[in-house]
Amino acid sequence: MNFSSDNAAGVSPQIMAALTAANEGHAMAYGDDSITRAAEAAFTELFERELAVFPVATGTAANALALSALTPPWGQIYCHRNAHIEEDEAGAPELFSGGAKLALLDGDHGKIALETLADTIAAAGFGVQHHSQPSALSLTQATEAGTVYQPRETAALAAIAHEAGLAVHMDGARFANALVHLGCRPAEATWKAGVDVLSFGATKNGAMAAEAVIFFDPDAAADFLYRRKRGGHLFSKMRYLSAQLVAYLRDGHWLQNAGHANACAATLSQGLAALTGAHLVHPVQANEIFVHLPGAVLAALEAGGVGFHRWGPAETADGGQARFVCAFNTEPGDVDRALQIAQNAT
Amino acid sequence: MNFSSDNAAGVSPQIMAALTAANEGHAMAYGDDSITRAAEAAFTELFERELAVFPVATGTAANALALSALTPPWGQIYCHRNAHIEEDEAGAPELFSGGAKLALLDGDHGKIALETLADTIAAAGFGVQHHSQPSALSLTQATEAGTVYQPRETAALAAIAHEAGLAVHMDGARFANALVHLGCRPAEATWKAGVDVLSFGATKNGAMAAEAVIFFDPDAAADFLYRRKRGGHLFSKMRYLSAQLVAYLRDGHWLQNAGHANACAATLSQGLAALTGAHLVHPVQANEIFVHLPGAVLAALEAGGVGFHRWGPAETADGGQARFVCAFNTEPGDVDRALQIAQNAT
Amino acid sequence: MNFSSDNAAGVSPQIMAALTAANEGHAMAYGDDSITRAAEAAFTELFERELAVFPVATGTAANALALSALTPPWGQIYCHRNAHIEEDEAGAPELFSGGAKLALLDGDHGKIALETLADTIAAAGFGVQHHSQPSALSLTQATEAGTVYQPRETAALAAIAHEAGLAVHMDGARFANALVHLGCRPAEATWKAGVDVLSFGATKNGAMAAEAVIFFDPDAAADFLYRRKRGGHLFSKMRYLSAQLVAYLRDGHWLQNAGHANACAATLSQGLAALTGAHLVHPVQANEIFVHLPGAVLAALEAGGVGFHRWGPAETADGGQARFVCAFNTEPGDVDRALQIAQNAT
Amino acid sequence: MNFSSDNAAGVSPQIMAALTAANEGHAMAYGDDSITRAAEAAFTELFERELAVFPVATGTAANALALSALTPPWGQIYCHRNAHIEEDEAGAPELFSGGAKLALLDGDHGKIALETLADTIAAAGFGVQHHSQPSALSLTQATEAGTVYQPRETAALAAIAHEAGLAVHMDGARFANALVHLGCRPAEATWKAGVDVLSFGATKNGAMAAEAVIFFDPDAAADFLYRRKRGGHLFSKMRYLSAQLVAYLRDGHWLQNAGHANACAATLSQGLAALTGAHLVHPVQANEIFVHLPGAVLAALEAGGVGFHRWGPAETADGGQARFVCAFNTEPGDVDRALQIAQNAT
Repeated sequence: MNFSSDNAAGVSPQIMAALTAANEGHAMAYGDDSITRAAEAAFTELFERELAVFPVATGTAANALALSALTPPWGQIYCHRNAHIEEDEAGAPELFSGGAKLALLDGDHGKIALETLADTIAAAGFGVQHHSQPSALSLTQATEAGTVYQPRETAALAAIAHEAGLAVHMDGARFANALVHLGCRPAEATWKAGVDVLSFGATKNGAMAAEAVIFFDPDAAADFLYRRKRGGHLFSKMRYLSAQLVAYLRDGHWLQNAGHANACAATLSQGLAALTGAHLVHPVQANEIFVHLPGAVLAALEAGGVGFHRWGPAETADGGQARFVCAFNTEPGDVDRALQIAQNAT
Repeated sequence: MNFSSDNAAGVSPQIMAALTAANEGHAMAYGDDSITRAAEAAFTELFERELAVFPVATGTAANALALSALTPPWGQIYCHRNAHIEEDEAGAPELFSGGAKLALLDGDHGKIALETLADTIAAAGFGVQHHSQPSALSLTQATEAGTVYQPRETAALAAIAHEAGLAVHMDGARFANALVHLGCRPAEATWKAGVDVLSFGATKNGAMAAEAVIFFDPDAAADFLYRRKRGGHLFSKMRYLSAQLVAYLRDGHWLQNAGHANACAATLSQGLAALTGAHLVHPVQANEIFVHLPGAVLAALEAGGVGFHRWGPAETADGGQARFVCAFNTEPGDVDRALQIAQNAT
Repeated sequence: MNFSSDNAAGVSPQIMAALTAANEGHAMAYGDDSITRAAEAAFTELFERELAVFPVATGTAANALALSALTPPWGQIYCHRNAHIEEDEAGAPELFSGGAKLALLDGDHGKIALETLADTIAAAGFGVQHHSQPSALSLTQATEAGTVYQPRETAALAAIAHEAGLAVHMDGARFANALVHLGCRPAEATWKAGVDVLSFGATKNGAMAAEAVIFFDPDAAADFLYRRKRGGHLFSKMRYLSAQLVAYLRDGHWLQNAGHANACAATLSQGLAALTGAHLVHPVQANEIFVHLPGAVLAALEAGGVGFHRWGPAETADGGQARFVCAFNTEPGDVDRALQIAQNAT
Repeated sequence: MNFSSDNAAGVSPQIMAALTAANEGHAMAYGDDSITRAAEAAFTELFERELAVFPVATGTAANALALSALTPPWGQIYCHRNAHIEEDEAGAPELFSGGAKLALLDGDHGKIALETLADTIAAAGFGVQHHSQPSALSLTQATEAGTVYQPRETAALAAIAHEAGLAVHMDGARFANALVHLGCRPAEATWKAGVDVLSFGATKNGAMAAEAVIFFDPDAAADFLYRRKRGGHLFSKMRYLSAQLVAYLRDGHWLQNAGHANACAATLSQGLAALTGAHLVHPVQANEIFVHLPGAVLAALEAGGVGFHRWGPAETADGGQARFVCAFNTEPGDVDRALQIAQNAT
């Protein structure tokens, strides 16, 4: 019963099979192979437009490299205070951008508030040489709070950013989970809503280690090859990165995986929230659950071998917060067992 | 008949099987898993000493991250003029080191000449604030010319470096091929010869994407976790990196792979060198062949579908140079066929 | 009547005379001269201890270089939300540190609140590879709000920082103004209160362009020579930087300058605060005044040729904020005239 | 008798007087002052075209900032093997460019050989993601060997660079000395010969600390304000930088200074070269002399209190090399005395 992270889940059988299948004969190195071309075609079809795709292996690489293409070293990247790029990448955006700043914006439930963005931009010293220059907006989809921006929300934020000359990046480490929640086409959640560059994640949703940096304007990607290479993120045997992505997109595999994870999260969160003394900290819209639980429940879950993370402030007499994450391969029986343990403790 | 690169070869069956086997159940993310611990133990045993191991996915990442731990931003890293870190990493060492310089040293057949290193160090302005400060020596093993440093050669270079206060790095992207040639223990070719940090390559020799940065002094690796993470090189599903390394080292698999590649290269190079008008550009000591061939031979090989790279200066009336690389899975029959085509053209 | 900035003031006659006097004959370049040695001796005497001094020409250089010596590239530097290093250096700390983050702390009147620092440190993920690592605390003295840390306040903040392993930097661009307010010895306001490295400013207080980076532990300055040089901040004709610093410190010149500026600020601020509808935004403890004034007063001052800056939020019906800065050479008559204009407008 | 460096010379009386004159009243900070505007106008007139000027205080700052505007972090800057940016700036170009490489080219007497540049560019892997991308050519004028590029030489090198898409930078730390030798107009030696950005030096030729980065295409300077500021090179009291530059250019002061230095160098070098066993290592075309002298002469000069630097390889039985530098204020009598000492020793 491991709800600690979707990174703790393994690789889906379909993707593992694709890796085995890709292991036939020779293939030219560094992306000059047919599987990589197939991945590019698959993304073009998925997003219904011309674009540039760059497979990499980690979400941090995808985000930091993408952002580095959108900001000068003296730039400011606006992101939510709790964005992954701020809290969990150990300064990767600063490294790859050559020293740009992340400017932290507030907003409920992991989403940047529209007014906060507008006010911050209004107060920024565009053109003043003493100030870092606002250069990009980065949105996390699904957010670090497990919530999802509606396309109209993304579009409204992007419109403010674009009007001020900022580029818009989306950290889509859990893009599949968000899209399942939205039920819209990928294009609607991204470039049609103003996203310029997307970190398209697959690793958390069943791949082994595969993400794609997607530029919806291929011209903006002119020097990305060099960024990726000098970051050490160009794979010699690229076909194995690409094979994961192809299998991920094939026949809706990615959405099935995310749909399963989201459904498990819905069941688990509803069960937990119904417990006496429990309440959800954030709405559950994807595969992450942030919930306040009574101390007895927390203790019982831990004692019962249910893997999850304590979260937020220290536990008090009222209890404390916990994060549960469901994955593409979460066993429904594990959800039931975890809920049973929790219910028994109340 | 693909002799273009060992990166064009796929993944060995044993390593692919290990990946499949690793795909069982959950595993804690980011290296807190039993397979990663097994990889650490395997390297400790292999090198017969305490050490610190950091799996990464590309050779460029291994090299650049390793070097960043050995030099301040104002440092100079001595390497051979044709070192991979200079010629084929698009500035990765400069990025990760924060701007250190690579100082290029000459030497025959890809090896840094002892006297050149000594003279360069003697002329360096240690302690002079106007000058970049020599900080590290990086040796490539096997070299970019397909040759191999003997342990006594490594030791002599390392001794000069250490005496001047420089750390010693070894780029072992083809360490297995070198070791097979040397026939010595890994310890003898590395830390016993003065190597402080090793980029231990597996990708070119049958892995999918797996290298290990090895610090023979674990204390020197204190902050490497942060370097790796902020480089985007910390894998969430680390077990799959580690599984490749465990399988690579198990039962001498890595040496068998390299032994096969080296043997093929020996056969192919001897056959090519025996052709009228042909000669080896560098001794063939590992799995790479640099050979001068008559124009007719070059043309016949290309026409016959033999994959290889033109190399060095433009072809003249005498012919031109070519690079052939053999891999763990090179078919002996392909070697024979390629030689037959070449012989028919003379 | 220019109260726009102490940077708008010129050079004090004593310092200009020192520059002229320094212009005698040859002097070895890059600091190997007797005036630079005299400056070093003067600082050693002033601070009553062994230390290392590095003259530079700008406050941004002093701060960014100093901080770069206190943080790894993956470090976090704690500073007040409105610190100069955050708001007015266009990313210099990020450049020189190789990408460290500034973590912004709140606190009234420009001072970091003790509890905020403690809570932030308590929540920091020391040793967690995903997180930037807290590495330094930077205090501004006098603050950007024109207030001054008491030695016991500095000591309390520094104690928390040191206990967590952080170094303590003080941005003393207006250190003289702060010290005059405190009336204590320089040692008491700095190293005796836990400051490890001080950016000692002179430019704003009568020098032409001279600051000193002071390491109270000379050993910690071992590689600062290289940092300064590769930043382009090593002056070839160093004697002219040093001559400014020597003259600045001689016979209490620096304290007289600051005392005059502070006194003018006191007079001006009291006069302004006494106006109907006016109030001070921050206590005036050094040479900067932040004051809320009725719109009519603001307009009258501008119309009357009084130089100052609008500040903070946009003017409302109640009026708006303004910043006035007094300098070493502010004319008392200008203070009177400005006040007269203001009073006439109410 | 100090011939050690033109940096050991002081400030010319005219420039010191200009500093004193600039010290009148208030001036808006950070370059928004009338003296800075006068400096801009003076450069525009001098170079006979629209341009963008940025005063800074050191040659290293000028070079490194200028180059950072001409290269991406994965770029290669071609320069002579002995260029100041390579040998004497402790990695400043690497810092400000975010990790670009300096690629070292050979050529006699400090000048890049045309063929070497052409061959290097021909062999560069433009567009190949594994390789750093050639981005700029940097020429030193006068060179580090005391020689001077003729406009046609500059133009020929620049033409090759431009054809390959590289920008052309000129390190003019001793531009005045070069121009006096050439006897041409500044425009002819720079933008008419293909120079895009010039580091225009004044410090070595009588200023206190003043250089100007000049973009002949103002559009290319769009973000230079931020580069300068975040490098800590924006002076708050900019008028004093600008005043030096205005005085430097006024009434041909800069050329008179350089003419004097060059003439002294000519006299001294001719005298030294005429000694038995002596010969010039490089032609003397500016104010630097590189000369081989018998050991007895070297010893006599040192014993006689003549300041100069030993240079190049260690002294042998034949003698050794020495560098002498003449400055704007070199006393002709000192030249005579030094020659007398040398002659007495032969």
